[in-house]
Amino acid sequence: MIIIGGGFGGLAVQRRLTGIDARVALIDRQNHHVFQPLLYQVATASLSPASISAPIRATINDQAECDVVLAEVKGIDPDRKRVIFDEGSVGYDYLVLAAGATHNYFGNDDWAPHAPGLKSLSDATEIRRRLLLAFESAEHEGDLESQRAELTFAVVGGGPTGVELCGAIKEIATHTLPREYQNIDPRAVRVILLEGAPRLLGAFPEELSARAKRDLEDLGVEVRLGTQVTEINGDGVRVGDEFIPAGNTIWAAGVQANPLTKDLGAELDRSGRVIVGSDLSVPGHPEIFAIGDLVSYTPEGSEHPLPGVAQTAMQMGRFVGDTIRDEIRGTRTRDQRGVFSYHDKGSMAIIGKNRAVAAVGDRKFTGFIAWLMWAFVHIAFLVGFRNRIRVMFNWGWKWLLGSHDARLIIGDTRMRIRTPRTDEFEYHAPGDPDRG
Amino acid sequence: MIIIGGGFGGLAVQRRLTGIDARVALIDRQNHHVFQPLLYQVATASLSPASISAPIRATINDQAECDVVLAEVKGIDPDRKRVIFDEGSVGYDYLVLAAGATHNYFGNDDWAPHAPGLKSLSDATEIRRRLLLAFESAEHEGDLESQRAELTFAVVGGGPTGVELCGAIKEIATHTLPREYQNIDPRAVRVILLEGAPRLLGAFPEELSARAKRDLEDLGVEVRLGTQVTEINGDGVRVGDEFIPAGNTIWAAGVQANPLTKDLGAELDRSGRVIVGSDLSVPGHPEIFAIGDLVSYTPEGSEHPLPGVAQTAMQMGRFVGDTIRDEIRGTRTRDQRGVFSYHDKGSMAIIGKNRAVAAVGDRKFTGFIAWLMWAFVHIAFLVGFRNRIRVMFNWGWKWLLGSHDARLIIGDTRMRIRTPRTDEFEYHAPGDPDRG
Repeated sequence: MIIIGGGFGGLAVQRRLTGIDARVALIDRQNHHVFQPLLYQVATASLSPASISAPIRATINDQAECDVVLAEVKGIDPDRKRVIFDEGSVGYDYLVLAAGATHNYFGNDDWAPHAPGLKSLSDATEIRRRLLLAFESAEHEGDLESQRAELTFAVVGGGPTGVELCGAIKEIATHTLPREYQNIDPRAVRVILLEGAPRLLGAFPEELSARAKRDLEDLGVEVRLGTQVTEINGDGVRVGDEFIPAGNTIWAAGVQANPLTKDLGAELDRSGRVIVGSDLSVPGHPEIFAIGDLVSYTPEGSEHPLPGVAQTAMQMGRFVGDTIRDEIRGTRTRDQRGVFSYHDKGSMAIIGKNRAVAAVGDRKFTGFIAWLMWAFVHIAFLVGFRNRIRVMFNWGWKWLLGSHDARLIIGDTRMRIRTPRTDEFEYHAPGDPDRG
Repeated sequence: MIIIGGGFGGLAVQRRLTGIDARVALIDRQNHHVFQPLLYQVATASLSPASISAPIRATINDQAECDVVLAEVKGIDPDRKRVIFDEGSVGYDYLVLAAGATHNYFGNDDWAPHAPGLKSLSDATEIRRRLLLAFESAEHEGDLESQRAELTFAVVGGGPTGVELCGAIKEIATHTLPREYQNIDPRAVRVILLEGAPRLLGAFPEELSARAKRDLEDLGVEVRLGTQVTEINGDGVRVGDEFIPAGNTIWAAGVQANPLTKDLGAELDRSGRVIVGSDLSVPGHPEIFAIGDLVSYTPEGSEHPLPGVAQTAMQMGRFVGDTIRDEIRGTRTRDQRGVFSYHDKGSMAIIGKNRAVAAVGDRKFTGFIAWLMWAFVHIAFLVGFRNRIRVMFNWGWKWLLGSHDARLIIGDTRMRIRTPRTDEFEYHAPGDPDRG
């Protein structure tokens, strides 16, 4: 069998395969699993990439033999049962497609260079680079209006990622960076959250959406609801008749399924997600399963498809792993497949220090309690004991001292940097005869 | 005054400037200071980039006002006393050139893409990427000879960097990676250290050079002395009549001064280093100082110029910082400048777990004691209390459990990766009717 994707879903499948006599391959185009819920902390310079990721080889279940293959899958041939690479292909008996989703600019792909999304470690370090460069550039910008534009961060999309990014950007902009920049007034830093729907965090109870908005506004984030973005370019964002000058735009608005779903010959929703059966297999192909945020699955009795979050992917992965394991062992047949049911363990989003919102069953939590729950859950689910210690240490430090320290700009530093305001800047001592 | 470079030298200058009434700028093309002695640990996946670096803004002496400028200096005009950027220039009264050195391929710049050097965090993550990709690629390489070439690491240059890299590569190849690769025999991993001189660690006492060689050989590193490299390409390295197939070559052989030294109109040595006066100023320009590994300074009574190490740069920086501070304050004149004298605090190089060599004055240390000294000194000099804790934690973990965990391949993963041996790899369960 072949598993495509080493995210939450793919790994969960592999972990259930103990004790089967079959060749298994886990294919990913990266060598590492990423704990996506904390990507925004890499993007905002709180955590290092290595702290929220783990090599896939080090993470898989050793009790289940598995080839880990670092390669990019180019296509799937469901009729010949082969996974296709640039050179050659490999055959499978079972296939699990767990390749995740990517950004969806809803047809406006020209927005992409101006509004990076946040799906991979490279995305996160790119956003971090832009965030830190904006401050470097603004420090030497003499024109106050231009400085203000450079320090304006527009985040498109008010789901958990957008909310968490806004809170974190405001935090680093208010608490850590101003100490080090002499020419930047922290009040000049604008963070604007743009959401098309009438409320934030659409998947949460309305009460928590309202609370998240209030918390963000307390931190100084401008929240604009019911706002459609009609243009994004290097200078800013257009919403309706207004153009907001913003040097930095981040896309947290939409995702689309990995395009491999198109090869399956099955029905897709408008985001490219496969509509799977109750056993999570692809209609017409009982040997192919699809899990995670590239599927659309609406449980019986529900009106909405399951959310594309880590919980969903992990539960689907375990279900599919169990199914395949039992069928290979011969303890169940295809006719005996169960129906996948989702156990909603709740949703949470962090807004800032001591502020979060959480919904667990009918109970709702806000403020410090929700924040503690958030921190506990995220540490508990991080892959790797060592990462847990490191992240706890970093959070403890930040909580006490408020400093961010993964503030590395790696890659091109020249993009937006100007020389200092040249005619004004002369570096002399007062007594120097050459002093300008 | 202007300081170019935020390394050990430039920061040391800035730290001495407390209480002067002068505009000071510290210019660097990166936003972070890097603790270069530990770069090899980033390259070999032991430490994260953020653990050995610190934002320059967070590192400078707050008691001395200083503009931190992220920009690339294009030139120096010593007659007009201006530092030149792509757009515009700024004037100075004092200039300290502390811009460091880069790799020197001795005229063979076509070797560069095949043999990266190790001077910056980007270099380190590039070497890490190549190291980890070599294992990924070798895992699926069916031909044993090709696999052996992919797992051959040739390190050119037997100074501390070369010695430390070889020890660390052998360590990760022997202890961490084999657990995770089923098709790689750890004995297939060859690490070859090529040095032109008749001994390793030329700056150390001969006894320690011999010990370092023995220690490396104990670890399984092949050490070849008196060996001139005459060609490097993507397939390997030529030494004399022999061509060594090596998928990975690392350049640790030579450095050349930052080309800005050419603008000073002063005498340079053959590596482009400025030959400075006894006050570390540039002949003919008492207002320009040069420090660190871009200068050649031979103390009176010595036969050799000072080594281009962190100690030299820091001591030079303190001396120059004191000189400029006193002259700006008016407590000393230019005629009263002192003579720089270097206090050799010793040299050390680590070879592997519990193995290092150290020379302090006339005393020599090897083995576990030298290793402890090395670890203590490197932690003590790391910038940032938080980094010290993190690095100690990581080393403690690695010492106890032997695992490397910053094993991220970021960037292009496709370079050397093939698909699995396609015709052989079919992922099926034994009972599957389609099984090939």
